[in-house]
Amino acid sequence: MANPVLPSSGVLSPLGLDAVRLSPGFWGDRVALNREVTIAHCQEWEEREGWIGNFRGERPRRGREFSDSEIYKLLEAMAWADHPGLPALAEIVAQAQECDGYLNTRWSGSRYTDFEWGHELYCYGHLIQAGVARLRMHGEDPLTRVAVKAADHVCRRFMEGSETCGHPVIEMALVELYRVTGTERYLEMARRFVERRGTPALADIPFGRAYYQDDMPVRQAQVLRGHAVRALYLACGVVDVAVETGDQNLLKMVESQWERTIARRTHLTGGMGSRHADESYGEDYELPPDRAYNETCAGIASIMLAHRLLLATGDVKYADLAERTLYNMLATGVALDGRSFFYANPLQVRVPSVPLDGVNHAAEGGLRSPWFDVSCCPNNIARTIASLPAYVAGAAADGLRIHHYASGEIRGGGPAVRVETGYPWNGSVSVRVLEDGRGRIGLRVPAWAADATLSHVPASSPDAPLPEGPVIRPVGPGYAVVDGPWRAGDEIRLELPMTPRWTFPDRRIDALRGSAAVERGPLVYCAESVADQPPLGDLSARVRPPVEHHGDDVVELEVAAALGAGDGNGWPYSAAANGHADGRDVRLRLIPYHRWGNRGPATMRVWLPI
Amino acid sequence: MANPVLPSSGVLSPLGLDAVRLSPGFWGDRVALNREVTIAHCQEWEEREGWIGNFRGERPRRGREFSDSEIYKLLEAMAWADHPGLPALAEIVAQAQECDGYLNTRWSGSRYTDFEWGHELYCYGHLIQAGVARLRMHGEDPLTRVAVKAADHVCRRFMEGSETCGHPVIEMALVELYRVTGTERYLEMARRFVERRGTPALADIPFGRAYYQDDMPVRQAQVLRGHAVRALYLACGVVDVAVETGDQNLLKMVESQWERTIARRTHLTGGMGSRHADESYGEDYELPPDRAYNETCAGIASIMLAHRLLLATGDVKYADLAERTLYNMLATGVALDGRSFFYANPLQVRVPSVPLDGVNHAAEGGLRSPWFDVSCCPNNIARTIASLPAYVAGAAADGLRIHHYASGEIRGGGPAVRVETGYPWNGSVSVRVLEDGRGRIGLRVPAWAADATLSHVPASSPDAPLPEGPVIRPVGPGYAVVDGPWRAGDEIRLELPMTPRWTFPDRRIDALRGSAAVERGPLVYCAESVADQPPLGDLSARVRPPVEHHGDDVVELEVAAALGAGDGNGWPYSAAANGHADGRDVRLRLIPYHRWGNRGPATMRVWLPI
Repeated sequence: MANPVLPSSGVLSPLGLDAVRLSPGFWGDRVALNREVTIAHCQEWEEREGWIGNFRGERPRRGREFSDSEIYKLLEAMAWADHPGLPALAEIVAQAQECDGYLNTRWSGSRYTDFEWGHELYCYGHLIQAGVARLRMHGEDPLTRVAVKAADHVCRRFMEGSETCGHPVIEMALVELYRVTGTERYLEMARRFVERRGTPALADIPFGRAYYQDDMPVRQAQVLRGHAVRALYLACGVVDVAVETGDQNLLKMVESQWERTIARRTHLTGGMGSRHADESYGEDYELPPDRAYNETCAGIASIMLAHRLLLATGDVKYADLAERTLYNMLATGVALDGRSFFYANPLQVRVPSVPLDGVNHAAEGGLRSPWFDVSCCPNNIARTIASLPAYVAGAAADGLRIHHYASGEIRGGGPAVRVETGYPWNGSVSVRVLEDGRGRIGLRVPAWAADATLSHVPASSPDAPLPEGPVIRPVGPGYAVVDGPWRAGDEIRLELPMTPRWTFPDRRIDALRGSAAVERGPLVYCAESVADQPPLGDLSARVRPPVEHHGDDVVELEVAAALGAGDGNGWPYSAAANGHADGRDVRLRLIPYHRWGNRGPATMRVWLPI
Repeated sequence: MANPVLPSSGVLSPLGLDAVRLSPGFWGDRVALNREVTIAHCQEWEEREGWIGNFRGERPRRGREFSDSEIYKLLEAMAWADHPGLPALAEIVAQAQECDGYLNTRWSGSRYTDFEWGHELYCYGHLIQAGVARLRMHGEDPLTRVAVKAADHVCRRFMEGSETCGHPVIEMALVELYRVTGTERYLEMARRFVERRGTPALADIPFGRAYYQDDMPVRQAQVLRGHAVRALYLACGVVDVAVETGDQNLLKMVESQWERTIARRTHLTGGMGSRHADESYGEDYELPPDRAYNETCAGIASIMLAHRLLLATGDVKYADLAERTLYNMLATGVALDGRSFFYANPLQVRVPSVPLDGVNHAAEGGLRSPWFDVSCCPNNIARTIASLPAYVAGAAADGLRIHHYASGEIRGGGPAVRVETGYPWNGSVSVRVLEDGRGRIGLRVPAWAADATLSHVPASSPDAPLPEGPVIRPVGPGYAVVDGPWRAGDEIRLELPMTPRWTFPDRRIDALRGSAAVERGPLVYCAESVADQPPLGDLSARVRPPVEHHGDDVVELEVAAALGAGDGNGWPYSAAANGHADGRDVRLRLIPYHRWGNRGPATMRVWLPI
């Protein structure tokens, strides 16, 4: 079966990519755009920047010490997308591998001299993930042989000893290679990398060992901390090891780390990472909207983690968080044309950014860029969207579970069904059974959907009397499960209430005090300073029901606000409290956060002073 | 005359260090502690870290590329303090100078190959400032000859061309060397460095050219931006060049840059710099309390700039800002024992820091450290406190002006006076005239002191009838000026109201919305989580007059607050607004911000939710 994550046990099982065919719609369009545009875009830039040339032996070597991994992420994207460019690119990579399996264009003369920053095992991790994807989609070929050879080299070199890599990812890659090959030493190697971490295994650095989760063993940690992508990749590997070794205590530790991280260290968009300096989480309740880092890759890694925990536990809360992050981080990270990307995803931008055609050396998040010095995000987006159907649905013991709503067909886990929906723009989801069969069908009702309803409309039949009107029943958050047996043509209709709603922050989030945001369905909304929008720097919104404006492929909202008057005096602290703007009344247009930054330089804010 | 800044023109003139003798008191004690403890502490650490050894030719060279400058800052501190250790240390430095004047322990084999990060001219700047200090305090000696030789080398090498240094400081150093020697080429070299910047003169870097103020010529800039210390050092040099060349337009530009910076980019403590990643200002109204960087050196540089603008214009607002920064940044940067230092000075710390005896590789600001990898702050504190009497008073055309209140004697600028005060703990300042004489005496009334009063108490005389009770008159913010002539024993009494006051932020400062701080006199107060203090993470203060608690050498305050109840749920954003804590009532003890972090690891906050 083809899926990036195939645990051998768990409450839910994934379906193969071939079991889920997306048709045009929010995600179907993005999967197509990714295959047609984004993958080629990434390959062009990696060629232009010389990162592919590094594998050809071109000198001087170009790019950062971890640039090899970008080619591997791209290869993984190509594998999931069954992209015709894969074999040629894989061949270039294969030629750079040394006889004993070592493969790195930067460190080949000085192997394993810098575990803190060298990223050699990190690069292998992405190579192995690409190999796993290729094995599952295609079967053995030069790319998979390179990946296996590298994994064998890693096991020989690192099975004994106390070394590990400053940047996790090898852990989950090795578990998946074990899952696809059955070779147990890969699992054992992953387990040892997990257990070594925090003993400590790496040097102290100015950022502190928490930066790479080496401050304490993973079994003692209470929360995700340090560099967000590293923390999340590690947690993914820990879940994988826990599931395959049947280590329930280890799984429970990650679950509790996740819970505290969600309760105290996650932005409304699902974004994680509050600090630019070390790309780290920051402390509990340190959630600044303007300086939120929220690296696109951390959003992707959070989706990967939530998906693993969903499979292991079946708890719908993980799917809820994954959905929030899919719509407000993954969909935000790439422009509507598939050719430019956000690295950081702040929730407030005070000054419009300058457009950039070339490589963006910074990662501030004001305007999407075609490429970055560190271009993990574009390639990570490419591989994630290429494998997106893998996240849509799964199988429970009693039948199908649909986690995320996108038009298309699902054939696996239960009765074959066709999903039709305009989600996330409207909340109507139709699931029509395509063949007679048995097994339950469960539809996720998100936690925000308090008044959802579900109806079961039996297919009309010449043998039976005309069906009465369908029974509509309220369904609460969780999986709304409908029993079979099924006849082709049976339909389940889920109605999720899409009324826009005001959302307020926990009062311990100092940076958001006195503000509120608007959400609608799974989407976080924001104000963007384009066209005739009033300035966003000094306003006070009125917490009244927003007005909806339905367009072709987007729903915009409108709220009332008052603009601030006057420019203040010379010193911005005074004896007079000035809680609210008091100038003229304006209407403020809100767009989905993932759409912002597609209309040129602008300021933006999710949280509105109230 | 001995003073770090001696302009040849301006509304106010400085007095020499020898004209101001501080006696025990807030600043007098700190000047003594600095001389007795801090200077030796810095020298010990520079020896231990090998930075002094670099000048002896010890290899491998140790420390960062700019570590030479730390020895120069220390030499400047020694010069102002007339410290006996200076000649021996200067001798070590002198031996490392090359025949043509070049002097750098890091780059000697590859001179001037990296203007962006090499810091060679930056190091010269501090060397020249040390040389200027020594010339003014002592006269020519080996240190001053090294400095002059280096300056001559700089003029020969850089007078033509378009090069400048990534880190300003050479500009103000050269102007001061011109002032003390009269050699005009130093001024011309400084002028050219100022005018070159932003043409642009340096390479583009990931932080952007604004990082080192090379994004536009200084005559076009509207605000201070980029790396805060660089921006402020450059602005100091620009004022110096403008004053010496009589360029009023240039001076006006800096004044307007300063005004916008104060109105939009300055923390309540006077601290500047909101971002850790590039130690930069951040955008207008980006003033987070928790992630405020507020480098100690930026506070010092801001005092240097405000002092220069005060001298040039006589506008009291510059002295007000200098006072705020002296009490809440400079005094905060060093512990009460003179042996540990803050690098960053945030206004909120959520998690207590781990104590550190050795070198602190980070700069987070949770607990003072004895030393840093980059130890500009300790040495900058040492040189600034060593020259602190230079900032206390000045001469106007009509007589003396006292800018800052500290017990001591002032002999210069007007009638000799003795100042006696318990400031900043109480607001009574007595200025007693020591000799018969003429000339006015002006006392600064800070902007916060709305109901200040001043009285003139003539000396009692056997010839005259007993004086009636003194006439007490209200004085508003600005300089309250009293006419002479004076008889020895005449006294001026200034009463500044020291009632604690609540201060509210401009509503455009998003990070402070819904909060208020308490100030008393020039001091910003904060809550620190020590002893039986309630936890600071979830509370809501009541905006009522604080209660004062007077101790031996500190006034503490107490306010009422409510603690938050409950631990929240799993997702910290909800449909319910929860503006205020609602648990049990508590009393919250507030201490002066500069005193925090002297009682072990703690959390802290200046801005209290209300």
